[in-house]
Amino acid sequence: MSETIFSRIIAGQIPCHRVYEDVHVLSFLDISPLAPGHTLVIPKEPARTLDELSEESAAALGRVLPRICRAVKQVTGCAAYNLLQNNEAAAHQAVFHVHFHIIPKPDEVRGLGLRWNPGKLGNEAAELARALSEAVSR
Amino acid sequence: MSETIFSRIIAGQIPCHRVYEDVHVLSFLDISPLAPGHTLVIPKEPARTLDELSEESAAALGRVLPRICRAVKQVTGCAAYNLLQNNEAAAHQAVFHVHFHIIPKPDEVRGLGLRWNPGKLGNEAAELARALSEAVSR
Repeated sequence: MSETIFSRIIAGQIPCHRVYEDVHVLSFLDISPLAPGHTLVIPKEPARTLDELSEESAAALGRVLPRICRAVKQVTGCAAYNLLQNNEAAAHQAVFHVHFHIIPKPDEVRGLGLRWNPGKLGNEAAELARALSEAVSR
Repeated sequence: MSETIFSRIIAGQIPCHRVYEDVHVLSFLDISPLAPGHTLVIPKEPARTLDELSEESAAALGRVLPRICRAVKQVTGCAAYNLLQNNEAAAHQAVFHVHFHIIPKPDEVRGLGLRWNPGKLGNEAAELARALSEAVSR
């Protein structure tokens, strides 16, 4: 995988405002926050998208998320927040190293804005679930 | 915690289009998809928000996310996708049992729409990171 700003932060070549670190995971403040306390959580493993991340790194990252979310809630005093992880530029990924955003939602304006235009699950559902289930167990 | 539609799905009282299941985790199709293949991944543990989830459940959920994301990519043929997890109604949470959305982004219209109005991290950053770091290690 090519170098990214995050791999350089992990390597200590670029500074960050560190929130948490362990063998597998690094967490630090987003330098372009959508709201105060906007925090990133990244695996040290250099995976481009979540589907490319090892189970070991993904488990380690998952394990620490509740703790970091509690800290963000406590320090910002904001109970509402979104966790977001984008994959590929078409889905708004800007740095091509897996990263989870923890984004406090203090009010209507600040934080993550979502556009939600749901459809309805139709007759394709059973076949779709079967295909996904088969693909997961492969 | 009070009963939700997801706790009733876990208990087998309401059917779902199941994609994956293990001791800690259940995954199934969202009945109001933002795009074809929109999949939910939930812990069986009845936690309301991510900060309330146990480390054990969070690790188990994290571990299986890459596999389920690979399956969604493969079956939908859509490389771009967002992972989203909302906490509290102000942040768009509608069912009060932790759930991760995997939302394919096949084109501009379908999938998750994001409004991204970033600010700049200022002089408060060092103190904020210190407070978060202290809160995480408590």
